[in-house]
Amino acid sequence: MHLKASSPKSNKPAPIKVGICGLGTVGSGTFNILQRQADVITRRLGRTIEVTQIGARRDNPACDTTGINITRDIFDVARNPDVHILVEMIGGYDTARELVLTAIDHGKHVVTANKALIAEHGNEIFAAAEAKGVVVAYEAAVAGGIPIIKSLREGLAANQVEWLAGIINGTGNFILSEMRDKGRDFGDVLKEAQALGYAEADPTFDVEGIDAAHKLTIMAANAFGMPLRFDHTYTEGISQLTPHDINYARDLGYQIKHLGIARRRDSGVELRVHPTLIPQQQPLAAVDGVMNAVLVQGDAVGQTMYYGAGAGAEPTGSAVVADILDIARLIDHPTAAVPPLSFASASDLNVLPIDAVETGYYLRIHAKDHPGVMTTITRILSNYHINIDALIQRERRDTDGCADIVMLTHKTLEADMNTAIAEMEQHDDIVGSITRIRLDPLG
Amino acid sequence: MHLKASSPKSNKPAPIKVGICGLGTVGSGTFNILQRQADVITRRLGRTIEVTQIGARRDNPACDTTGINITRDIFDVARNPDVHILVEMIGGYDTARELVLTAIDHGKHVVTANKALIAEHGNEIFAAAEAKGVVVAYEAAVAGGIPIIKSLREGLAANQVEWLAGIINGTGNFILSEMRDKGRDFGDVLKEAQALGYAEADPTFDVEGIDAAHKLTIMAANAFGMPLRFDHTYTEGISQLTPHDINYARDLGYQIKHLGIARRRDSGVELRVHPTLIPQQQPLAAVDGVMNAVLVQGDAVGQTMYYGAGAGAEPTGSAVVADILDIARLIDHPTAAVPPLSFASASDLNVLPIDAVETGYYLRIHAKDHPGVMTTITRILSNYHINIDALIQRERRDTDGCADIVMLTHKTLEADMNTAIAEMEQHDDIVGSITRIRLDPLG
Repeated sequence: MHLKASSPKSNKPAPIKVGICGLGTVGSGTFNILQRQADVITRRLGRTIEVTQIGARRDNPACDTTGINITRDIFDVARNPDVHILVEMIGGYDTARELVLTAIDHGKHVVTANKALIAEHGNEIFAAAEAKGVVVAYEAAVAGGIPIIKSLREGLAANQVEWLAGIINGTGNFILSEMRDKGRDFGDVLKEAQALGYAEADPTFDVEGIDAAHKLTIMAANAFGMPLRFDHTYTEGISQLTPHDINYARDLGYQIKHLGIARRRDSGVELRVHPTLIPQQQPLAAVDGVMNAVLVQGDAVGQTMYYGAGAGAEPTGSAVVADILDIARLIDHPTAAVPPLSFASASDLNVLPIDAVETGYYLRIHAKDHPGVMTTITRILSNYHINIDALIQRERRDTDGCADIVMLTHKTLEADMNTAIAEMEQHDDIVGSITRIRLDPLG
Repeated sequence: MHLKASSPKSNKPAPIKVGICGLGTVGSGTFNILQRQADVITRRLGRTIEVTQIGARRDNPACDTTGINITRDIFDVARNPDVHILVEMIGGYDTARELVLTAIDHGKHVVTANKALIAEHGNEIFAAAEAKGVVVAYEAAVAGGIPIIKSLREGLAANQVEWLAGIINGTGNFILSEMRDKGRDFGDVLKEAQALGYAEADPTFDVEGIDAAHKLTIMAANAFGMPLRFDHTYTEGISQLTPHDINYARDLGYQIKHLGIARRRDSGVELRVHPTLIPQQQPLAAVDGVMNAVLVQGDAVGQTMYYGAGAGAEPTGSAVVADILDIARLIDHPTAAVPPLSFASASDLNVLPIDAVETGYYLRIHAKDHPGVMTTITRILSNYHINIDALIQRERRDTDGCADIVMLTHKTLEADMNTAIAEMEQHDDIVGSITRIRLDPLG
C-alpha cells in the first residue's frame, strides 16, 4: 500500500481531533503547520488530523482560524469530549499545570512545549497520565525543533548514556557569539539581543541559566532513567563573562559556551549549567548565534550530536506536530507508547552537589609582577593536587603594575578548587578575585 | 509505575526472542550490546529481550555465546518458530534477500543494517512485509549509530523536507580530511586508509560513491515519500580530486566534501553523490575523519543536523538494537508502526537526470597566459548565462607557461555548464581538461 498513489480518503479511519490552548508564537506555529501540511500528514499517517477547537484569550492575525471553534476559556478545550489531544501552548506554571491535569483527567493525551511545567511538575503530571493511560509528549520543550528527546528515548535506547552537553539556550549563545566576534561587553550585547527580540525584557531566565536548567533536567531524566530533579540542578549564568576571558580562551584553543551538562558517575549524577571552555575543534564549538545543539556520549554509539533551531514559531511547532503524529499513531494502542521518561522503571539516582563535581578549570589571576608570585600559585595548587595543563602570562602589564596569569587545569574536585582559590586570593600579590570558569574536553 | 524502582520480573510480559544471522562486525556489536545492556533494556521496555538463536558460518571470539543455540544454517533462524525478530547481519545481496523474504514469510519482523539490500531490493521486501503485517527496520543501514532514519520518519514528520545533504561514507571523508590537512594525494591516503582498516582492499564501493548512493536512496525515500530509486541516483567518486583543488577551495572559504544530496524541485527530485564545495562556516564542513553527518532542510524546522560515527561494531549495533526495541514495543500492535518508507501512501516522484540538476560550480582552468584568455572564458560563460561569483588567478605560473584560473559560479543548469566547458576546452589557450566540481551553499 505504501508504494501506491494516495488512496481515496473514504477508506481512511476517523480523523484525530486536536484542541490547541494558547495561540502565541508556538501555538500559531503549530496551528499553521497542521493546516499547511494537512495533506502530507494524511499521506504519512493514513489518517487526518483536525484542529477541532482553539482556546485563546485573543485571536492571532498570523492564523486563519475560519471555521474553527474558538473559545476564550481554555478549560473548555480540556473538557471537550470531541478532543483527543490537547496541545498546551499557554506557557507558565500554575494555569498550565491545572489545564494539563484537567485534560488528563478527561482522558485526553497532551502535547506541550512547556519546559518549566515539565521540569518542575513533570513527575506529578506523568503519574496522573499513567493512571489514566494517556500520553504526555514534550519534544518541543527541549531545543525547539531538534528531535533530541526522541533520540534519547528511542534512537539511543541501546546505550547507557555516559554524559550529555548542550547549547540549549539560543539567547545566551547569541550573546556569547557576539561577545567573541566583536569583542563587546555582555551588557552591551544583551541590549542588542533585547532589541532583536532574542532576549526578554527581564532576561534572567535565559542569561542566568534557569531555562537551560529546565531543559537539562528533562534530558537527564530521559538519558539516565531518573526522576526530574530540577531542584538539584546547579545553575550559573553568563553575565560575569568578559571579552577578555573569551579571548584568552581562544588563544588557548577553546571556546566558551553556556552549557547544560549531565554526567553519570559511580557516586551519582552531575547536573549543571554554567559557562564552559570546550575545545575549538569540538563540533559543539562551531554552534553559533541562536542555534542549539546537544552532544551525547553513549557507551555503544560514542558521540552523536543534534543541531538546529532551538526556538521560533515553526521550529518549535515542528516538534509539537511530530508529537501529535506519534500520539495519533498510538491512539488505539496507548500501552505501546514509550514511558513518559523513557524507562518503564526509573532509578532514583543521587544528584551530586556542585562541590562534588569534577571538572577542568580556566583560572585568570590578576597578580603583581613580583618574582615569587608564580611559586605561590603553583605551591597552593599543588597542595590540593591540582595539575596545570596550560599557562599564559602576557608580557603586557596593566596600569596597576599587574599582569594576568591565565591557566588551565586538569580535572579537579570543585571543593578543592574553591579552597585553593580562597587561599590564593588571601595572598597580597594577588589582586581582586580570581576568575574561574569550568572546562570540559568533551572527550 | 515509571518512577518506582524496578518491579520484580515475575509480573513482566514474556520475553521478546531475537535471532541473529551473521556474527561479523555489526552482528557481534549487536549481540554484545544486547547482552551487556540486558538490564537497562528491561528497565526501558518493561520486558526482556533474549537472543534465542544465532546463525553464523563460524564463531566470533568477540562474543560469549555460551548457552545460546548456534546454527551454521542461517535459514534455520528464519524458520525458527521461537524467533520473533530476525536480525540480518550477513550483508550482500542475494542470500540476504532470500533470508529476509523467508523470515517475513514465516511471520517474523526483521532488522537489518544492509544498505545495499534495502536500496536495491527494499521495494520488494517492504511489499512482502506489508502483506504479512510485519515490520522491517533498517536504521543501521544509514550513517551507523546516528538516528537519522528515525529523525526523518518521526522527528521531522511535520515538515516537507526541501533537501538533505550528508557525509555518509566515513572512508571517503577520512581520505578527504587527510588530503586537506597533509596535502597528500588521493592514492597515497587511500593506501593508508586500507592499512588502517577504514577502506576495503577493493575500495570502489566507498570511493566511487556507491555506498553513499545506497544510503542517499534510503534517506530520500523517507524524506520525500517516494519509492527507493537507487537505479536513478547519480554517482561520482573522489578519486579525481587533487590537493590542489582542495587548497584553492579553502582559499575561497570552502571545504570539499563527498556529499549525498537529495533535493526536491517542482520538476522532480535531484539524487546525486559527488564531491561538493560547501562553505567553511557550515556545520557540515567541520565534520572530519571517519565521522558522518546529515544536514536536513525542512520547511517548518529549518536546518537540523545529525552527527556521529557512521560505522563500527557498536555504533552500528546501537542502531540495530534501537530498532529491536522499537519493534518489541509494537510487537502486539504492528499496525501502529510507521510505514516502511515513512508514508502510508508514497508518490512516485520523478528523479531528474544529472543534466537537469541546478547547482553552483567550481572551475579550474589551466590556461596560457595570453591577454585574451579571460575574455574568451567570460564570453563563453556569459553565452550560457553562467554568472561568476568569485575568481582567483594566481601570479605564479607553471613551467608550461600556463596559470590556473579558478572560479566559482552561481547556480547553473548542469547541461549548460557541460556545453560551456566543452566549448572552452576547444580553445587553443586552454590546456587540458577543465576541472569541474559542484558547489552547494547549503543555504
